[in-house]
Amino acid sequence: MKNRITELFSVKYPIIQAGMVWCSGWELASAVSNAGGLGIIGSGSMYPEILKSQIQKCQAATNQNFAVNVPLFYPDIDKHMEIIIKSKVPIVFTSAGNPNLWTKELKKNGIIVVHVISNLKFAIKAKNAGVDAIVAEGFEAGGHNGKEELTTFCLVPLIKKNVDLPLIAAGGIGSGKTMLSAMVLGAEGVQIGSRFVLSHESSAHINFKKAIINSKAGDTVLTLKELTPVRLLKNPFYDKIEDAYLKNKSIEHLRELLGRGRAKKGMFEGDMESGELEIGQISAYLNRILSAKEIIDEIMEEFKISIKYINEL
Amino acid sequence: MKNRITELFSVKYPIIQAGMVWCSGWELASAVSNAGGLGIIGSGSMYPEILKSQIQKCQAATNQNFAVNVPLFYPDIDKHMEIIIKSKVPIVFTSAGNPNLWTKELKKNGIIVVHVISNLKFAIKAKNAGVDAIVAEGFEAGGHNGKEELTTFCLVPLIKKNVDLPLIAAGGIGSGKTMLSAMVLGAEGVQIGSRFVLSHESSAHINFKKAIINSKAGDTVLTLKELTPVRLLKNPFYDKIEDAYLKNKSIEHLRELLGRGRAKKGMFEGDMESGELEIGQISAYLNRILSAKEIIDEIMEEFKISIKYINEL
Repeated sequence: MKNRITELFSVKYPIIQAGMVWCSGWELASAVSNAGGLGIIGSGSMYPEILKSQIQKCQAATNQNFAVNVPLFYPDIDKHMEIIIKSKVPIVFTSAGNPNLWTKELKKNGIIVVHVISNLKFAIKAKNAGVDAIVAEGFEAGGHNGKEELTTFCLVPLIKKNVDLPLIAAGGIGSGKTMLSAMVLGAEGVQIGSRFVLSHESSAHINFKKAIINSKAGDTVLTLKELTPVRLLKNPFYDKIEDAYLKNKSIEHLRELLGRGRAKKGMFEGDMESGELEIGQISAYLNRILSAKEIIDEIMEEFKISIKYINEL
Repeated sequence: MKNRITELFSVKYPIIQAGMVWCSGWELASAVSNAGGLGIIGSGSMYPEILKSQIQKCQAATNQNFAVNVPLFYPDIDKHMEIIIKSKVPIVFTSAGNPNLWTKELKKNGIIVVHVISNLKFAIKAKNAGVDAIVAEGFEAGGHNGKEELTTFCLVPLIKKNVDLPLIAAGGIGSGKTMLSAMVLGAEGVQIGSRFVLSHESSAHINFKKAIINSKAGDTVLTLKELTPVRLLKNPFYDKIEDAYLKNKSIEHLRELLGRGRAKKGMFEGDMESGELEIGQISAYLNRILSAKEIIDEIMEEFKISIKYINEL
C-alpha cells in the first residue's frame, strides 16, 4: 500500500501506534516500527533525561523511522524539544496545544511534524502552522480528548472535506475492519492506541491490561471536562469523581481530587483502586495480549479480508 | 445489492430513513420508499387519530413497504399499536423501551419488528424478544440516545460480533462514504435521520432546516442525561439548560424547563429561540435541501464511487 502517509513516514503500513503516557516507551515504539508501522514514544510522562535515554534505546532497537509525541502544554517542553532536535528524531507528533508554538522550529531542523486535533478549527490552525499531516481524533479515543465530542465517524469526513493534508484517523480503531472503515471516511492512515496497550511490549502494568480485557461496553467515560476532558476506565477513583459531580463540588476540588501522579499510579504501577486508567471505548472489544508484530499482522490480514468482503456486497 | 436487510424489507437499497418526531410524516416516508429505501413514519409526535390518517396517506402514496417507528414509552401506545395492526403496516421499528413489551404481539400479526438499541445489553434483550433486526445507534445520532455514549465506530462492530441478527447502523451516516464505512464495520443497512430532515418532503420547519445548514462542528450536544439523553442543536433554549446545570439545579427543575411541546415548537413551528431542535452531529456536514429521491440517488452514487476508491488503495 502506498499513499501520502506511507510516503511521508517511509513506512510499510499506514498504522501509527499512538503516543500514550506510561504505556508507550522505546520497547513498544521500536517493535511497531520494526513490524512495518510507525511507533511513537509518548513523552508526556517522561522527564527530559528519561526521554533522552528512551530515544537512544529506540534508535538502537530499530533502523526504521519512529516518532515522539509531545503534549504542547508540557511544562518542560523546551528541554524536550531540544533533546528531540539534538537526537535527530525524524518525526514529532504534537498534541494538546497551539500548533504555532513549535512547528516552524521543528521543520527548520528537518523534522516532520504531525498535529493531533479534535475539531475543524484546530485542523485549519494546524494547516496554517505548516504541519505535514493531521491526526483527527474522535470522542471514542482514550486519554485526553476534545470539548466538542465529535466522533470519528463525524470528524474524519469533516476534516477530509475542509483541510487538504494527509489525514490520520484516531479513536475507535483497533482492527483491520475499523482501519478500512476509517480509510473509507477519507483517512490515509490510522492511529491506534488501546489495542497497543494490550501488547507485550507496552509498559502498561499487567493489572491494567487485565482490567482492559475484563472491561465491557460502557465501562469507559469521558470526564473531567472542566479541566481537560479525558476518557478513562471506570474504577473506584472514577467513582470519587462521579460523587464529586453529584455533590456539585468546585473545579478546584476536582483538580485536587485528580492530583498528580494518578495516571502513573494506575497505568504503570497497577493500582486499580486509586489510579487513573486512560483507555478508549474499544477496550470493550479487546481481549488478548499479543506482540506488536502480531497485532499489526492481524490488522493487515483483516484489512485485506474486509476489502474482499466489500467487493462481495 | 442483496443482503438480509434488503430481503427482510423487500427494498432496493438498504437505506432506512429514521422515524423522527415532527420531521417524518407520510410525505417523507412514502417518498423514501418510492425511491428504493425504507421510509418510516415517526409516530412519537402523533396522536392516534393523526397516526391513522398518516398511515392511510402513506399507503395511498406508495405501493412499496414502509414502517412506523414507535417509542415504547409513549403513553398512548396501546392505541398506536392497535391502529398499526389494523392498518396492516408491514414493518414496525420500536425504540426507547423494553422490546419484550410488543414484539410477540406484532409478530403474531405478521409484522416485521426491528428494535433500536444503543448498547450490547439491549441488543441481546432484543434478540431474545424475537425481533427480526436491530438498529445500533451511536452517540453521534440526533434525538434520544443511550447512556453509555458508545459511538457508531465502537457500537456496530461490538453488536456484529455478539448478536447474530441483520444489523442496521445509525448515527453519523448521511452519505455514500459513511454508508460504506458502516457496512465495513458489519452493518447490512443504514438508518439515516439528519440528512432526510433536509429533504423537501420532511415536515421540519424551514427555519429548522436553515439552522441545520448554518450549523458548524460542535454545535450539537448530548444533554439532559438525567432525564432522557437527547442530542440537539445549541440555541437560546439550550443556553437555559446549560445555565441550569451551571447553577446545579435539580432534575425536577430540568424537567420543568423542558416542559411539554418544546420539540414541536422548534422543529415543526420554527421557533429557533425557545424550541428544542433534535439533530445529529453530522448537521455540520449538511448544506443542501434536496428531494428524498435525490438524496438516495446521491448516496448510492457516492457509495459506488467509494467502493472503487477502496479498490485503488
